[in-house]
Amino acid sequence: MSDNLSVLGKARKAYQPKLPVALREGALNVKLNKGKATESVRDQKKIKALFPNTYGAPYVSFKAGKAAGNAKPINVGVVLSGGQAPGGHNVIAGLFDGIKSIHKNSKLFGFLGGPSGLENGKFIIIDGKVMDAYRNTGGFDIIQSGRTKLETEEQWQKCLKVANEQKLDAIVIIGGDDSNTNAAVLGEYFQSQNAKCVVCGCPKTIDGDLKNEYIETSFGFDTAVKTYSELIGNIMRDANSAQKYWHFIKLMGRSASHIALEAALQTHPNITLISEEVKAKKMKLKQVIKYVADIVAARAADGKNFGVALIPEGLLEFIPDVGVLISELSEALAHHEAEVEGLDTAAKVEKLSQWVSKSSAEVLNSLPAFVQAQLMLERDSHGNVQVSLIETEKLIIEMVKKELKSRKSFKGKFSALNHFFGYEGRCAAPSNFDADYCYSLGYTAAVLANNKMNGYMSSVRDLTKGADKWVAGGIPITMMMNMERRHGEDKPVIQKALVELDAAPFKFLAKNREVWAKTESYSYPGPIQYWGPSEVADQMTYTIRLERGAKIK
Amino acid sequence: MSDNLSVLGKARKAYQPKLPVALREGALNVKLNKGKATESVRDQKKIKALFPNTYGAPYVSFKAGKAAGNAKPINVGVVLSGGQAPGGHNVIAGLFDGIKSIHKNSKLFGFLGGPSGLENGKFIIIDGKVMDAYRNTGGFDIIQSGRTKLETEEQWQKCLKVANEQKLDAIVIIGGDDSNTNAAVLGEYFQSQNAKCVVCGCPKTIDGDLKNEYIETSFGFDTAVKTYSELIGNIMRDANSAQKYWHFIKLMGRSASHIALEAALQTHPNITLISEEVKAKKMKLKQVIKYVADIVAARAADGKNFGVALIPEGLLEFIPDVGVLISELSEALAHHEAEVEGLDTAAKVEKLSQWVSKSSAEVLNSLPAFVQAQLMLERDSHGNVQVSLIETEKLIIEMVKKELKSRKSFKGKFSALNHFFGYEGRCAAPSNFDADYCYSLGYTAAVLANNKMNGYMSSVRDLTKGADKWVAGGIPITMMMNMERRHGEDKPVIQKALVELDAAPFKFLAKNREVWAKTESYSYPGPIQYWGPSEVADQMTYTIRLERGAKIK
Repeated sequence: MSDNLSVLGKARKAYQPKLPVALREGALNVKLNKGKATESVRDQKKIKALFPNTYGAPYVSFKAGKAAGNAKPINVGVVLSGGQAPGGHNVIAGLFDGIKSIHKNSKLFGFLGGPSGLENGKFIIIDGKVMDAYRNTGGFDIIQSGRTKLETEEQWQKCLKVANEQKLDAIVIIGGDDSNTNAAVLGEYFQSQNAKCVVCGCPKTIDGDLKNEYIETSFGFDTAVKTYSELIGNIMRDANSAQKYWHFIKLMGRSASHIALEAALQTHPNITLISEEVKAKKMKLKQVIKYVADIVAARAADGKNFGVALIPEGLLEFIPDVGVLISELSEALAHHEAEVEGLDTAAKVEKLSQWVSKSSAEVLNSLPAFVQAQLMLERDSHGNVQVSLIETEKLIIEMVKKELKSRKSFKGKFSALNHFFGYEGRCAAPSNFDADYCYSLGYTAAVLANNKMNGYMSSVRDLTKGADKWVAGGIPITMMMNMERRHGEDKPVIQKALVELDAAPFKFLAKNREVWAKTESYSYPGPIQYWGPSEVADQMTYTIRLERGAKIK
Repeated sequence: MSDNLSVLGKARKAYQPKLPVALREGALNVKLNKGKATESVRDQKKIKALFPNTYGAPYVSFKAGKAAGNAKPINVGVVLSGGQAPGGHNVIAGLFDGIKSIHKNSKLFGFLGGPSGLENGKFIIIDGKVMDAYRNTGGFDIIQSGRTKLETEEQWQKCLKVANEQKLDAIVIIGGDDSNTNAAVLGEYFQSQNAKCVVCGCPKTIDGDLKNEYIETSFGFDTAVKTYSELIGNIMRDANSAQKYWHFIKLMGRSASHIALEAALQTHPNITLISEEVKAKKMKLKQVIKYVADIVAARAADGKNFGVALIPEGLLEFIPDVGVLISELSEALAHHEAEVEGLDTAAKVEKLSQWVSKSSAEVLNSLPAFVQAQLMLERDSHGNVQVSLIETEKLIIEMVKKELKSRKSFKGKFSALNHFFGYEGRCAAPSNFDADYCYSLGYTAAVLANNKMNGYMSSVRDLTKGADKWVAGGIPITMMMNMERRHGEDKPVIQKALVELDAAPFKFLAKNREVWAKTESYSYPGPIQYWGPSEVADQMTYTIRLERGAKIK
């Protein structure tokens, strides 16, 4: 912990994150401008019915201004929910400094191990000494995270009991789309019980899929993708130096392909698969393989038996015929479990091929044996085949190898290595951008808490303009919601932001990828720099710059 | 290439690497102090007989001094040999600037694709424009590398022909122990033919095993291990945040465990395996597994079902009973190939168990099925089982899992993830240290070339004292040699520097590892910094600091 801070960690402790101008007089001296009542993005009636107390609240933005009343200490609880993302500690630091700026006796409760810590009243008091040990560091280790979902009334009651016992004025849940949905649900419940405590959220996820007009990016995306891009760039340089391997690199990000897309914009790989495009074009697995094999073959024809390909983690689930196979397979295995038990993989495949549709049987038989085995071994608690466990990068390598072997025209070599990057970036120390953005989100949450803005998410906007011009405020979480089918039930959830094929980031890839495929237009971003020239140390992602209208050659 | 330099790449182009004082007046204005005649580290008679022309040359060190004669342009060829290492481009930049400081008409020939480029006379002329695009960058892409070994007289003749045709004064081979051995052999041959051209070497390898009194470290080790340590630190922070996974991380470095050891000193993992220790203690595979399982179990007893373990790539080859198994298996497969053909893995194992010793049969049967399959599938061109292809990190996870399952006392959980880091660091842009060191090595080579120091390796010493006090010079390659058995023949080779169990770096690990095992003493070094406080940006490895007597707590 603090005792073992590296030299970099020690030097970074001194970094003072930047705040939007509106917050520079402290969290008390902030005026709230309220906009018009809001509506959810879809299914307005249903969402309104589910959130009678909190639906329709206005967007608010902050301005610096003299405090109206007297300063009173507030008690705030904070929860880290779900997967780690760089900058979580800085959200807490911003929240800490924010509530301390309101009154020095304000208290920050850190609930341990995620939402279950809130439910069970397990917490520590985060004081100045604890807080200082974690400023500008990566990880969620200050209070750890967890994946418990607060979904039942029994859980909400327990949370309320804890909030009442500790006299909490607010709970801030730092999480992704699901965790913020739960924050809204909990806030609605608290208000229905006339609780004093409000619930706010902060937009976290390296996946980049919690994003809309008011949330320009989720925190952690910047740092995580820069870390992956450093590694991809290093591997590219290796590929271009050795000129004998293809590297297939899978990148974390379950649903959306934002990470793969941003990493591609930073590094210019020969191949980038984007799940959303595969789905939109209804590409079959064999078409995906053909696309990859064609580029490998074209490079080989130029004497280039090397290259780099990026693969989003969630790809398989976006390939229509794989999706059909998965559901048919789950069904077939459920009905015929006994008949296949004890058989080896080949025999199982033969049996199962009879019980699925002809096209699914084709897909199943086209898969490498290790994938077939994985598909039939691993099933989740609902009995479903678990596609997420499949090593997609190896699957693609094997199938491309087979495809190339079948082509008489292919005279090249195809030696491929696989990599998977995810854990390497989730807990990196936040980049300057994430350090500032997270701190500002946390400070914003202190203002929302102090103003009893129940069911709001911290929003810091105009991010590409520099912290001086950042606009801080809050957005009602219900505004981001729609109804979605989850485990056989319609649920209100925050709409996931997938890669938009008609938006600037994807178009940038689409415009350049043919050249990148054939050439070695590789760019090597190198490691995140915390010091040095501003264009290096404060560089923002291509995604946000392009989305905000920047012209990039 | 240069067109696509990242913002970091562009900013780094401006970095001017530091040189030892002796070289700051240019490569011409250097005086050579010659020491006494040298001897090889072992097998002096045999080495002398093999190198009658170059054996016994003195160590030389440089001092700045007015040039004796007139400046004449020199022609130098440069070759990158073997695996990539950060800083290779800077060696070439130092060499380029060095020979240009002698005379502006000096010419640098870059042989393409490694030693085969020299043999076949394939080269480019590296001019100022080409050179400038690669200063302070990672990779070997300026002229690519290759693994051809120059071992036959026919090859040496071809090289000499090329050297004569291009009127080369010197060839500088940048490589590891084998490549520098070949440099010495080629230099000896050239001299035996009264060639004008001399051959020099530069000590490259991320593995850190080319090291002795005069070569304090090989270049690239610093940058590569820092890159791996960044990732290990990030994963540790993730492990300590999620508190539910064990991460088993294999690190590149075929023979020696210097990389794993240095990474451990930088990050403080719960478990570090050091091949040299396993060998010295004659640990059997099951003892290695027990050692790991004991730490996992002890942490689980403290409620900690998570941790981080580092594994050197070459581990299996250092475990005595695995070594015996491999050789017996190679033998058995050679004799009984037909009898096992077509059998599945289990049946093969049963058959083969009869044809190997009882203890080897035990080891074989203790291995996970996927390792057994790998062992019997992959054999090299000599028919030997290829232990290097085995995924050691997965093997250990599987065997530890089994071991824990067999222990009634174990009540914890063991969910393990595996990683392998190698390609991620070999082509990273050089750290400030490697940028300076490599540039100095290259510049030193220019002085050696200009002074016709045949069979010498660039040596830059006193590295922990800062570039101002670095001592540049040359060391006869024969001095580092001994005779070793290679493919059934006695060959003169540079002695590999393995991890010494009685030296300070290993002792530092040994002293601390029990505490590190039980606690989360993790240190998170973060990404390499090129700017910022000197203690961050110019930090050297623990290995070299400890070896040079630094006291580190």
